[in-house]
Amino acid sequence: MKEFEVAPKPADPKLTRRLKGTDQDGSAVETAVVVERPLTLFLNGQEIVTLMTIGDYPEYLALGYLINQNMLRADDAVLAVDYDPEIDTVVVRTARATDFETKLKKKTLTSGCAQGTVFGDLMERFDEIALSRDAVLKTSWLYALTRKINTHPSLYLEAGAIHGCVLCEEDRPLIYLEDVGRHNAVDKIAGLMFRHGLKGHDKIMYTTGRLTSEMVIKTVTMGIPILISRSGFTAAGVELARRASLTLIGRAKGKRFIALSGAERIVYDADAREVAAESKRLQRKASLLEDDVA
Amino acid sequence: MKEFEVAPKPADPKLTRRLKGTDQDGSAVETAVVVERPLTLFLNGQEIVTLMTIGDYPEYLALGYLINQNMLRADDAVLAVDYDPEIDTVVVRTARATDFETKLKKKTLTSGCAQGTVFGDLMERFDEIALSRDAVLKTSWLYALTRKINTHPSLYLEAGAIHGCVLCEEDRPLIYLEDVGRHNAVDKIAGLMFRHGLKGHDKIMYTTGRLTSEMVIKTVTMGIPILISRSGFTAAGVELARRASLTLIGRAKGKRFIALSGAERIVYDADAREVAAESKRLQRKASLLEDDVA
Repeated sequence: MKEFEVAPKPADPKLTRRLKGTDQDGSAVETAVVVERPLTLFLNGQEIVTLMTIGDYPEYLALGYLINQNMLRADDAVLAVDYDPEIDTVVVRTARATDFETKLKKKTLTSGCAQGTVFGDLMERFDEIALSRDAVLKTSWLYALTRKINTHPSLYLEAGAIHGCVLCEEDRPLIYLEDVGRHNAVDKIAGLMFRHGLKGHDKIMYTTGRLTSEMVIKTVTMGIPILISRSGFTAAGVELARRASLTLIGRAKGKRFIALSGAERIVYDADAREVAAESKRLQRKASLLEDDVA
Repeated sequence: MKEFEVAPKPADPKLTRRLKGTDQDGSAVETAVVVERPLTLFLNGQEIVTLMTIGDYPEYLALGYLINQNMLRADDAVLAVDYDPEIDTVVVRTARATDFETKLKKKTLTSGCAQGTVFGDLMERFDEIALSRDAVLKTSWLYALTRKINTHPSLYLEAGAIHGCVLCEEDRPLIYLEDVGRHNAVDKIAGLMFRHGLKGHDKIMYTTGRLTSEMVIKTVTMGIPILISRSGFTAAGVELARRASLTLIGRAKGKRFIALSGAERIVYDADAREVAAESKRLQRKASLLEDDVA
């Protein structure tokens, strides 16, 4: 798979709208703003949830949401994924009969912008997963990944106010997906991996979002042993990462980063001083939009 | 009310945990990480939702959540708010009998980290609200507010990975509350306003988070005519702000900002060039943690 095999399409007119406004001097300006649409997800006969999404990959989002909620299993035969853009629905049909009536009644709004429906038996599956012990993360890869991701054209650089998740292998970003919620972005990656039979054991997940319990659960559920973010940690996220022996790296900005779990996978092969000089130049540009991801 | 009458308590040991980790050089480091706890909310006899929160103001969070979901009305008599820290529950008791069985079945996960349960009749109330036409926002206030808020001690500066909302009047930040989800932070402000009978018509809301539809709905529901963020916009947020004639200001960083709705309330009394020099100094400090809010 080549670098950025799947990547943001900031020029797609369906994903942003140009709006007129006023700047700090009272001058008229025009700016790009991300569009969000509802997407109602059905699994066989049952309505599961309505998600707000930028709408670029409804099929991947639907599959990934179901997988990450443990409603769809890795060995499930998916007979069809039918997306209807007119009524904003997507229907996933499986060979196995499903029934989540009872489950849907017990919901927890999780944190990190407080969202996501996490079901109890997600944790049963979580505890069964053994992440790859052979996986390593060279610091030279980490610096190369953040540089490539932060400079690649994206809705984030175009309009801000959006999260990104990137599935990587060694120093190569492969799949870069964005969405208004970081949960959607990671779910779309899970859906794509399911659809194309990609395995997680030799991959690295990069996210712009905070390292919350939910982000950790999803990464582990996808079998990915390494999770990197330029944002910070929550205590629950760190606790779960340690329980699963996930390598958890946060506050990855410029040369700096902190690992709060699984540091034994890190290979320190880069000279941090060299990175510092380059990242300073890049940060000047990025700081214009940086805070938009919140 | 004096400046920062209610403000973050970054030194409170219940709110952060010190964790050992490894930095970019492989050296051992210790860092503060925000703690999140579940809080299950009951309204009279009915379980409503479980929220993940830092847990500093469970009563305000409970009241504010119910108000912003339109489950509690401004004229409701609240008989008691009982918080039990041992089982992480809070029970709100009202004189009026309530029943949200049916409502709770129809949930939409909204965006901006994809969260929040928004009920249909929230919009009915939204459309009935007439925001103050007399309210103004001087740009000198805006610059003073962002400077004071960004430099005030906070969990954000201590540990990152947290959102803040600040209720302000003119150039004075009054109530500064933080939480893992920005929805919780704004809900706690709504709860505090309800509890103390504060009105929104002469207030300004500042948030670190994105200007999503949900943030706009909540601000309007609270009767506050001006909403400022250092983050960006979503198209749906802008649309709703225009529908309600809310003054919506985003990307407020240093001297820069953009208003995409209600610019008629802005009074341009500040010299943006003076602000630029000062904010540069402050930004060097803030950029260390900035991206954590995501």
